[in-house]
Amino acid sequence: MAKVKAGLPQGTRDFGAETVRKRNYIFNTIRTVFELYGFQPLETPAMENLDTLMGKYGEEGDKLLFKILNNGLERPEKHLKAKEDFDKVLEGKNVEGITERALRYDLTIPFARYVAMNHGQLTFPFKRYQVQPVWRADRPQKGRYREFYQCDADMVGSTSLLSEVEFACIYLEVFAKLQIADCRLQINHRKILRGIMEVCGVEIKEREILVIIDKTDKIGVEGVKEELLKEDIAIEKLEKLLAVYTLDGSNTEKLTFLKDFLQSSETGLKGVLEIEQVLNYLSQSAIADCRSQIGLDLTLARGLEYYTGIIFEAKAPPQVKMGSIGGGGRYDDLTGLFGVPNLPGVGISFGVDRIYDVMEELKLFPEDVHLGTQVLFFNLGEAESKAAFGLIQQLRNKDIRCEIYPDQSKFDKQFKYADKKNIPYAVIIGTKELEEGTCTLKDLKKGEQQTISQQELLSFNFTT
Amino acid sequence: MAKVKAGLPQGTRDFGAETVRKRNYIFNTIRTVFELYGFQPLETPAMENLDTLMGKYGEEGDKLLFKILNNGLERPEKHLKAKEDFDKVLEGKNVEGITERALRYDLTIPFARYVAMNHGQLTFPFKRYQVQPVWRADRPQKGRYREFYQCDADMVGSTSLLSEVEFACIYLEVFAKLQIADCRLQINHRKILRGIMEVCGVEIKEREILVIIDKTDKIGVEGVKEELLKEDIAIEKLEKLLAVYTLDGSNTEKLTFLKDFLQSSETGLKGVLEIEQVLNYLSQSAIADCRSQIGLDLTLARGLEYYTGIIFEAKAPPQVKMGSIGGGGRYDDLTGLFGVPNLPGVGISFGVDRIYDVMEELKLFPEDVHLGTQVLFFNLGEAESKAAFGLIQQLRNKDIRCEIYPDQSKFDKQFKYADKKNIPYAVIIGTKELEEGTCTLKDLKKGEQQTISQQELLSFNFTT
Repeated sequence: MAKVKAGLPQGTRDFGAETVRKRNYIFNTIRTVFELYGFQPLETPAMENLDTLMGKYGEEGDKLLFKILNNGLERPEKHLKAKEDFDKVLEGKNVEGITERALRYDLTIPFARYVAMNHGQLTFPFKRYQVQPVWRADRPQKGRYREFYQCDADMVGSTSLLSEVEFACIYLEVFAKLQIADCRLQINHRKILRGIMEVCGVEIKEREILVIIDKTDKIGVEGVKEELLKEDIAIEKLEKLLAVYTLDGSNTEKLTFLKDFLQSSETGLKGVLEIEQVLNYLSQSAIADCRSQIGLDLTLARGLEYYTGIIFEAKAPPQVKMGSIGGGGRYDDLTGLFGVPNLPGVGISFGVDRIYDVMEELKLFPEDVHLGTQVLFFNLGEAESKAAFGLIQQLRNKDIRCEIYPDQSKFDKQFKYADKKNIPYAVIIGTKELEEGTCTLKDLKKGEQQTISQQELLSFNFTT
Repeated sequence: MAKVKAGLPQGTRDFGAETVRKRNYIFNTIRTVFELYGFQPLETPAMENLDTLMGKYGEEGDKLLFKILNNGLERPEKHLKAKEDFDKVLEGKNVEGITERALRYDLTIPFARYVAMNHGQLTFPFKRYQVQPVWRADRPQKGRYREFYQCDADMVGSTSLLSEVEFACIYLEVFAKLQIADCRLQINHRKILRGIMEVCGVEIKEREILVIIDKTDKIGVEGVKEELLKEDIAIEKLEKLLAVYTLDGSNTEKLTFLKDFLQSSETGLKGVLEIEQVLNYLSQSAIADCRSQIGLDLTLARGLEYYTGIIFEAKAPPQVKMGSIGGGGRYDDLTGLFGVPNLPGVGISFGVDRIYDVMEELKLFPEDVHLGTQVLFFNLGEAESKAAFGLIQQLRNKDIRCEIYPDQSKFDKQFKYADKKNIPYAVIIGTKELEEGTCTLKDLKKGEQQTISQQELLSFNFTT
């Protein structure tokens, strides 16, 4: 067989032990909080039918789906037609006979597909969380991968604002548990955004304006002003708009201003009321410092096509230049596209790759997060290793993670192995120890050693 | 947008909460044991370059790879050529421009690719475990899926038989921890198989004969005899063969027989010696009942192309008709195909889907394995739910998994929700309780209720 140079597909990554452990630390923290709030796990397959995914992520999204080639031998009768339609496939169109499946692009559409399929059996309100990889044929670049994990929770089947309250708490609790201080949870409301457009008389350009406004934290107010000027908006409307979007002050001050400003917009006022209710609820909750971390940000305008109520965005601490590390919001209709209408809900997502980078930069991973093996037993011969093995099995029964060096190699080599694998303790049983029923226990961090009985070893406290 | 009927690709599955929890129980047990034995986690991407995978699983395997269509917009210059080569693609050939990536088919080749790529940085002997899904375009049928998990551990860079000893212990310890009694670990040795062929003078037909012999537990000795007869083997050779393969007795008795029978085969005797050493080691280990569960099975002949030493197969308890629930063995050369020669190792795998079925059939999952939310707080109005929410947040701080019903619905509906979600406790705070600072706590399993102070609730023991 021809030899192949070992390589990885562009935009994908291997994760070695240390990275897996650190990532699992984040995943497990998020999962634990989701469960504390009553969310239950769901897993869906990596592949979905192409027609489940096509058209759900805009024209650009269709092109970024990883499509799976049908197995030729699976459906030979369709080949000829498939060949004719080949150009369509390469344009990202679904052509039966060539490709009928694709890798999932996010977790929301598979979730919607699942809810629609199992609608009759599920208990509503239905609360699920899902932690799985997704794939996008994006051009790879720093921090952007073709395979990455999403961490989502959704609650569907209720319009109660309690869902929003709980999701806000979930964000803050996850960041508290990960010890990431100074995260900010920004909230806004789709209806406030709409109301502002109405009051300023620019509804007709809503989409274009909001896309520009949303860039405020990247290009600054001056940048926004410049771009808005290009949109051919009357100067007095522009000034009215900027009066809102440059508004400073506490959440309460902003809400007071908006109540007055949005008087003529029923929609806008509804948004203000909902934000107020959620903030009130949170201020009375047991998480004392909630209020200080949640800020009404009127420039926040994500998910304009699907969010219909409150919108969330979680921001990394300002000292790391990372931006958004999570987002979400309320939608009116999760499953309409799959024939099950009128199912409203709220969902949020955590950006685990970015949270990982934030935690690395701020050195927030616990010191023992990547501790694997606790004790290495040296191998000094057959009789010695047999004695060691008996002890190892007893320690494993006590949940101590042990290894024995498989070969009877030089001391040096075995020490180096322990060192490279970051193993904190070594146990040495040589001829003398074998005779005496003892062992030499080395604390490799402190560089200390002691000779103890094998019985003592079995009750030694190896937790560091 | 056109509405789509929600459906799943053939051969794939969604996993709801209960199934996810049960599967995680198995995964976590296996992971814990791998770590107790010093194995470290590795994760590789779902996709590999096609040339990494092609040719590694035989001709049939090439056809069963799920190939990923290149994104047309990614490399427009290659289209024309691709179209010409279309027929080749459908035959499962790698054609640049149409498909250059595929989903992984197992965890061994990606592991080999990883080791070859990172050869210079890794510490040898290198011990990794990997728990990830794999994909095969097999025809779906009962118990065979197109997406399923593999659970592998490998140790490479040592020829010490201690690896075999440890893998045998891992099998037995996993089954003990899962409380699956009466699993059998069958072992054999590639060199014993070779030796038998030599002594019987049928080396030339080794492959064909061993494939038949391996079917013994499916078709019985008579079936094997019948098939062997068709292979045009001289009757005296056949009888010699069958004398070995119908051999009964303890491991020691079989080994004694083989030492005599294989006298003229150096290779065969080496196999016998190794099996003997491993069994001796195991008999002296701390796992007292090891011996009784490990059996030398001379008909075991899996992985004939790659295993070169001891072979393992784990069998489900005889009362469930499931057959193999795991397998593995020693190989001489993991990474030669990727240009890094002479890297021997041992690897094993657990069949999690089958273990799941065995545990379901024998009702071995712990009763609390699928316990999600512990307490449901009823929602009886705004003031009441705010009081409830304050308590909930305090309970969550004590790691109690709580929910509040989001809407102020009828009692009935809220009870039904608790019932369907299998939530063991309900807390009710109505007008009266709100005034008095109390709450009504219902044990939904026992059908009992009590009114206690809210302070008492916070220190109640909700673990069931």
